[in-house]
Amino acid sequence: MRPFSVFERLSRAFHDYPSLSRILVVSTISGGGLIAYSEANASSSNNGVETGTRKKKVVLLGTGWAGASFLKDLNNSSYEIQVISPRNYFAFTPLLPSVTCGTVEARSVVEPIRNIGKKKNVEMSFLEAECFRIDPGSKKVYCRSKQGLDNGKKEFDVDYDYLVIATGAQSNTFNIPGVEENCHFLKEVEDAQRIRRTVIDSFEKASLPDLNEEERKRILHFVVVGGGPTGVEFAAELHDFVTEDLVKLYPKAKNLVHITLLEAADHILTMFDKRITEFAEEKFNRDGIDVKLGSMVVKVNDKEISAKTKGELSSIPYGMIVWSTGIGTRPVIKDFMKQIGQGNRRALATDEWLRVEGCDNIYALGDCATINQRKVMEDIADIFKKADKDNSGTLTLKEFQEVIDDICVRYPQVELYLKSKGMRGIADLLKQAQAENASNKSVELNIEELKSALSQVDSQVKFLPATAQVAAQQGTYLAKCFDRMEECEKNPEGPIRIRGEGRHRFRPFRYRHLGQFAPLGGEQTAAQLPGDWVSIGQSSQWLWYSVYASKQVSWRTRVLVVSDWMRRFIFGRDSSRI
Amino acid sequence: MRPFSVFERLSRAFHDYPSLSRILVVSTISGGGLIAYSEANASSSNNGVETGTRKKKVVLLGTGWAGASFLKDLNNSSYEIQVISPRNYFAFTPLLPSVTCGTVEARSVVEPIRNIGKKKNVEMSFLEAECFRIDPGSKKVYCRSKQGLDNGKKEFDVDYDYLVIATGAQSNTFNIPGVEENCHFLKEVEDAQRIRRTVIDSFEKASLPDLNEEERKRILHFVVVGGGPTGVEFAAELHDFVTEDLVKLYPKAKNLVHITLLEAADHILTMFDKRITEFAEEKFNRDGIDVKLGSMVVKVNDKEISAKTKGELSSIPYGMIVWSTGIGTRPVIKDFMKQIGQGNRRALATDEWLRVEGCDNIYALGDCATINQRKVMEDIADIFKKADKDNSGTLTLKEFQEVIDDICVRYPQVELYLKSKGMRGIADLLKQAQAENASNKSVELNIEELKSALSQVDSQVKFLPATAQVAAQQGTYLAKCFDRMEECEKNPEGPIRIRGEGRHRFRPFRYRHLGQFAPLGGEQTAAQLPGDWVSIGQSSQWLWYSVYASKQVSWRTRVLVVSDWMRRFIFGRDSSRI
Repeated sequence: MRPFSVFERLSRAFHDYPSLSRILVVSTISGGGLIAYSEANASSSNNGVETGTRKKKVVLLGTGWAGASFLKDLNNSSYEIQVISPRNYFAFTPLLPSVTCGTVEARSVVEPIRNIGKKKNVEMSFLEAECFRIDPGSKKVYCRSKQGLDNGKKEFDVDYDYLVIATGAQSNTFNIPGVEENCHFLKEVEDAQRIRRTVIDSFEKASLPDLNEEERKRILHFVVVGGGPTGVEFAAELHDFVTEDLVKLYPKAKNLVHITLLEAADHILTMFDKRITEFAEEKFNRDGIDVKLGSMVVKVNDKEISAKTKGELSSIPYGMIVWSTGIGTRPVIKDFMKQIGQGNRRALATDEWLRVEGCDNIYALGDCATINQRKVMEDIADIFKKADKDNSGTLTLKEFQEVIDDICVRYPQVELYLKSKGMRGIADLLKQAQAENASNKSVELNIEELKSALSQVDSQVKFLPATAQVAAQQGTYLAKCFDRMEECEKNPEGPIRIRGEGRHRFRPFRYRHLGQFAPLGGEQTAAQLPGDWVSIGQSSQWLWYSVYASKQVSWRTRVLVVSDWMRRFIFGRDSSRI
Repeated sequence: MRPFSVFERLSRAFHDYPSLSRILVVSTISGGGLIAYSEANASSSNNGVETGTRKKKVVLLGTGWAGASFLKDLNNSSYEIQVISPRNYFAFTPLLPSVTCGTVEARSVVEPIRNIGKKKNVEMSFLEAECFRIDPGSKKVYCRSKQGLDNGKKEFDVDYDYLVIATGAQSNTFNIPGVEENCHFLKEVEDAQRIRRTVIDSFEKASLPDLNEEERKRILHFVVVGGGPTGVEFAAELHDFVTEDLVKLYPKAKNLVHITLLEAADHILTMFDKRITEFAEEKFNRDGIDVKLGSMVVKVNDKEISAKTKGELSSIPYGMIVWSTGIGTRPVIKDFMKQIGQGNRRALATDEWLRVEGCDNIYALGDCATINQRKVMEDIADIFKKADKDNSGTLTLKEFQEVIDDICVRYPQVELYLKSKGMRGIADLLKQAQAENASNKSVELNIEELKSALSQVDSQVKFLPATAQVAAQQGTYLAKCFDRMEECEKNPEGPIRIRGEGRHRFRPFRYRHLGQFAPLGGEQTAAQLPGDWVSIGQSSQWLWYSVYASKQVSWRTRVLVVSDWMRRFIFGRDSSRI
């Protein structure tokens, strides 16, 4: 827990003295202006000097969290990097719910990817196109540009030496009829802009003549499907937008607006601590947001959404639906998975070094991939062999302790298991195994005893959530691996290879959870920080402002986001339909 | 010239001490924050108390300069005002060229029309719809909403007591084939946003592989048609955007970008002083903007624009065209003009009080209307009769001087004529007429002599330009007339009726030209102020900043526009394609 303690202590300080965080925000900004200015002026381009050897060509697909942080941190002039994405910018997606209601402007949360890439001594170029096929055989990706090339063609191919797949995921409709056609999603900046326009449209529509009360109510009924952080934050933002700003301009709409949140599970925000879930449900209840738990949507048409709540089917008339219920696989990834024999999976499987299983020189990270953590029990015979240096057929505690560090690096579930059982070290585990096999009183273990000791360990294999935090850390990790590829080839720094000789080049990727926020509207935010530390209220809102301002990818977006927040405090949100 | 002198003196001060204007801008902004905050907090709604009599219903079509300033200045609780427009906001159109390149954000130049209307004690409501037919017989307007009403209908009608038409004009393609389909216009905020995206698209497209040099050059060839203030400003903005920002991110595009400005006349900016025209042409020449004078566009297809330059027809490959060559009549206005027998005109004809000719209780202002200034010679017999109080058949100077003030108010061309001839008063004019008719040595004039004296006067009838300034002044004028309708019915304050009895209720509308700017890029602006005072350079740019900041319709837009300018200075313009 060491890496989080500073963060934790800071959060506690903010909790006790909320004014502290305000000072932080203000000083962050005022300091920022100057630095930003000098940074902007210092951005003279420095084209890397060509060396004699041919540069390795890295093709990066995607400019989301994983792609952008890979690009930002890559810093080795022996690569030539080619970025391909349909979006020529990186978007700070955690602020998308704020964009939907104009609390923050769309442009404030985006940064041109060329800006992110150009500061390095790495030769970077960008193609605005979508990859539609990956061919690992010929080491090519096939791309399509939205804008026609001029010979009528819209497609082209690009060679690679290394391929980094970071295309992200798409919204998941679970094939429920009518969702694709009638619902708004909230994955891209354009989605957020479209939602904003639609909200305003609804208020304008409800102001037109020749409508009865019921029709007006239907038009102003906003339904959010999915009680995860995004859905909850959108519902909260929308409620604030309506009560703080829109009712002033549309006074007649005040008693007609209604927000409903449908969640299939028994509670909203299930990935958070129970205290947060309860607080959120109570707050929404007070705010008049109708939270319908245990509701499975079964069908959507242009005016009604049908859901099964506790076995009962009901249809609710709606004006607008925002669908935010998890992620699905993009077609290009599905196609690629079929090619490499992963057709039955939901995301690209990689090893712990983010290398796509069964492919050479292809890496995948972010929402399009999952790490397939190697199980201890799969390798138990090899582990035994590796540890049993004298080939005696039994392991002494000393022999085992020599390899235990490597095993803990290679199989993080071992450490998690020990922690979950309250054990301090592997010795405790072995002793327990021996105590169970009471017959064997020696200090040596045979393979069966080792198997029994480690049999439960794999239950602690964790799948990483599909969050910005995971993707960003993976991007940074992979960039560092690429930067030190040559160096680590000579001096490998990873754990020993259990099934081979020597050591792995790099330590495997390890995720560090830094906590998570759930803004609940009305300047109330729930924060869950490492160590099960929970904070709810206005102080967390200020912490949220500080963290989100500091995490911005450039000084430009930082200044813009903070000035958007200030503008909102002073003038409210704009309701022009543009 | 009195009303302008303060403005003039200020401008001169800025010219001599450019730092002055910087101080003005800074103090405007810093003071603004506080005022804006208190203004925002004080906006508690004050619904006008219903009086016993039925309120007169004013229907206002349009939320542009004319409509918004009418709405802003109307302040009489005896009206109920119904605004109808497809746009629920007012846009500060002079900044649209800045929006095309991201110097200013779209949202910074718009203000919700409900905000503009709600501060008054006038009951105001808004309908987001487009009027497609005006029926003066039944006193109804027929409207269509973009969003369907829910019974499948999209149309509805609205009654009025007074109708104020301020729908503006549309771009004029002069029926040149291919213009509608292939060119961008620059009338609305959405146009500016679309242009911005297309500029970025062009740079992304030119970066794609599989294109030859010639194709890339074509894609990056930007053509502006029309050398008026809008076209010139757009060309200048685009040049700055490319040279200041885009070449940093697209270094390969540097030598491929080309901007061409086509103008049918012999010079650009013909409505400005010759010095400004010359300066602009020279500056564009230095900047590498290709100004083609005397070029008439005859055809546009998807890749080439054909123009006749001095008789020679040539076709130029292009990537993007912005068409900015004047305005045309909207279909609803055309249709209405046919109904009231004005079918052969180009804009709605009104009298000097902005009343549509041939209609009761219908007013028209802004770009959709022109004032049909009554000619002196049409009324000469009546003028003579009115002035000849003793019915002697001749006018003494004394008799004439008694009515001359009213005549000058009624026929502003009289004053303009005197000024153009260097005469100080009507006496000079009459004396001159007598000198010509040397035979008549008396101090009295008969009707023929009066006719001869005034025969040239009507040559000074001026048509007002279709500018924001004219529209805004008309809106304010009309609002004041509406505010004092009852009062002036009892105590008319206009000139005497020449062809009737008594006095006109109001003084006719009189336009006061406050000067005009032409931003030329690179922090150089040309300003032409009243009194033929011309200023070109950076000092005018600061004057431009000050004037445009001060003219903003709300404190919110003022702060946003100024912070956009500051952001641009520090961080440059954003090139994300959103």
